[in-house]
Amino acid sequence: TEFGKRYPRTSVVYASKAFFNRALGLILKEEEMGLDVVSGGEVAVAQSVAFPFAKVYFHGNNKTEDEMKLALDASIGHFVVDNFHELAVLNRLAKGQGIIQNILLRLTPGVDPHTHSHTTTGVLDVKFGFPMIKGIAEKAVAEAMSCSHLKLVGLHCHLGSPIFEMEPYEKAIDIMMRFAAEMKERHAFEMQEFSVGGGYAVQYLVDVPAPSVAQYAEAITVRLQARCREMVLPLPRLVLEPGRAIVAQAGVALYKVGAVKNIPGVRRYVCVDGGMSDNIRPALYGAKYEALIANNVGQGDSERVTVAGKLCESGDILIKDIMLPPVSAGDLMAVPVSGAYCIPMSSNYNLALKPAIVLVKEGRARLIRRRETHQDLMRCDLIRARAVECGQ
Amino acid sequence: TEFGKRYPRTSVVYASKAFFNRALGLILKEEEMGLDVVSGGEVAVAQSVAFPFAKVYFHGNNKTEDEMKLALDASIGHFVVDNFHELAVLNRLAKGQGIIQNILLRLTPGVDPHTHSHTTTGVLDVKFGFPMIKGIAEKAVAEAMSCSHLKLVGLHCHLGSPIFEMEPYEKAIDIMMRFAAEMKERHAFEMQEFSVGGGYAVQYLVDVPAPSVAQYAEAITVRLQARCREMVLPLPRLVLEPGRAIVAQAGVALYKVGAVKNIPGVRRYVCVDGGMSDNIRPALYGAKYEALIANNVGQGDSERVTVAGKLCESGDILIKDIMLPPVSAGDLMAVPVSGAYCIPMSSNYNLALKPAIVLVKEGRARLIRRRETHQDLMRCDLIRARAVECGQ
Repeated sequence: TEFGKRYPRTSVVYASKAFFNRALGLILKEEEMGLDVVSGGEVAVAQSVAFPFAKVYFHGNNKTEDEMKLALDASIGHFVVDNFHELAVLNRLAKGQGIIQNILLRLTPGVDPHTHSHTTTGVLDVKFGFPMIKGIAEKAVAEAMSCSHLKLVGLHCHLGSPIFEMEPYEKAIDIMMRFAAEMKERHAFEMQEFSVGGGYAVQYLVDVPAPSVAQYAEAITVRLQARCREMVLPLPRLVLEPGRAIVAQAGVALYKVGAVKNIPGVRRYVCVDGGMSDNIRPALYGAKYEALIANNVGQGDSERVTVAGKLCESGDILIKDIMLPPVSAGDLMAVPVSGAYCIPMSSNYNLALKPAIVLVKEGRARLIRRRETHQDLMRCDLIRARAVECGQ
Repeated sequence: TEFGKRYPRTSVVYASKAFFNRALGLILKEEEMGLDVVSGGEVAVAQSVAFPFAKVYFHGNNKTEDEMKLALDASIGHFVVDNFHELAVLNRLAKGQGIIQNILLRLTPGVDPHTHSHTTTGVLDVKFGFPMIKGIAEKAVAEAMSCSHLKLVGLHCHLGSPIFEMEPYEKAIDIMMRFAAEMKERHAFEMQEFSVGGGYAVQYLVDVPAPSVAQYAEAITVRLQARCREMVLPLPRLVLEPGRAIVAQAGVALYKVGAVKNIPGVRRYVCVDGGMSDNIRPALYGAKYEALIANNVGQGDSERVTVAGKLCESGDILIKDIMLPPVSAGDLMAVPVSGAYCIPMSSNYNLALKPAIVLVKEGRARLIRRRETHQDLMRCDLIRARAVECGQ
């Protein structure tokens, strides 16, 4: 609504890679949101809750043919086409099904959002999208418009995540609208939709605030309307793709404290019963988190500790140097803002079991994913001799 | 046997965290190897193939009480006790079962093996083991020997992985044997076993060779025998814990090529149908791999490309800048030396499906793990209202 009250037509499309399961699919459906998917798996989960596929966008730099078919069979609303290979394959498949598929084109406007290099996606040198150099993006527009079974309804860009400044969005809008105006002039391209992607930051640490939704909305809608006016473009539907901003703060990870190891004069390690198997972000991106001792929140923080996981690897550190009350075995540790990119990237490293997920609303709790069992670890294993053909 | 022919008593104990499933458990059993486990999950898989638990060692910096019980119930051979908390809990549990449990103590000798910081485990400032400063390790020995239901049979250290030099092993042996001699003198401690841990390197890249097994064997056994002679210690059983060295080169990852994206003058991206969901090592450790086009191995390498995965993240790059023959959609790419720490750390990020595993021996292939299905992704999800008690 921060966007809605500033701009005539907006669609909020949840980026399911931040976290997705059946229960969340149902909630998003009830909330009448759109959905970004990036794999056949995400399509399948959305199908399992009868999600309205007209509101689903299919992203990804290397969708397989099977995945494209699955999405077409589900009558997906839009493909966000990433490259020429996909354009050709998708046109062929849509033709085979006798349909006209709506698409956006993903472009890389060459804007640096100042995020971790792993999550910077809108610069020139990335695997995603059509580069906006040497006429490549224009060639993509022309080719898309000439595809008999595709309808190019808009343009898409995604800059990275998380983005704490407004300037990258504003710069990207400038570049994208200039391009849209050129394409209108040269190819009579009518841009009905424009997706500015996601990347909206959230507050992980007490002393690192994130911009408000209103700030993003103000910056993006003001700039978009100004540029469209200037270039005499009709206002496109504005598509937003928040993932982290929707679910990160909704999730709190709970751990039980086990061993506490003190190295005098060096460090005090507090070990919990999870770690990089359920949250790899600290090891992978240097991500930082706060923590609370859930059964002792009143007491003041008095000792500096490092929170380590139980995985068999030194890099399995959840939080380095945090002040906590005195901690000992059996305490419950809560790590807020764990709702995005923790469970989705979780593994069974060390054959650790993935945790249960409990949905809490107004003091009521509901189990929406059960904890894994040892049996789950072995469910795909085959030990009877079962010959397979070599080379297939 | 490189170790066996140089030293009277050695045990090769496979570190299952490198990769473990039921089929491998059976093979290790047939090969009469020992097994390192680090979780209840690994205990359960070993149990499922009736692995002889006398040859199993239980590692880990934060074993939970449930895991300890499971291992005790399985009559596990050794616990490698990591800290004082575990010592107390294990003694209590062993007492409850009326047994005397054999243990080793894990010590951190303060030797830097020059590996990635995530995998450096033998230095002072790590979450693992008893630090060898300020009498802490000595206190651990004294306490362990005084535990009524534990029998301290040896000492353990693990330096990190992969270690390309012999010097860290030699230094660690010096420190550990000096300590063992001191403990013999002061506490009448008889060291029957000494585990020098794992960390044996393998060759990932054509131009980065790894030491041979013979080199490790020569360095370790010569140094150990020399130090024991000097300090008048009986030769302990030598325990080795290879993981990567056993399985890394046994595994070849196969991918299918999809989109190829060329950014003129910048980079050529070849996208495959896997990525950081099945091999996070490049993103996490900067690990490097070679690749072959399996359906075109004869042709010379003529183009420099970057191999990207299909996951929705810029950091999802498998190999940066590699020379390959001309590649196009449909080609099969083989990435050798993928047998260790790829599948074990794999996730369902983007709801990607984990791959099948095929065992190949003398030209015959056998499926030992089936590919995941979309149904697998949802097997733990619950969408019917199922109330759970808050605060439990």
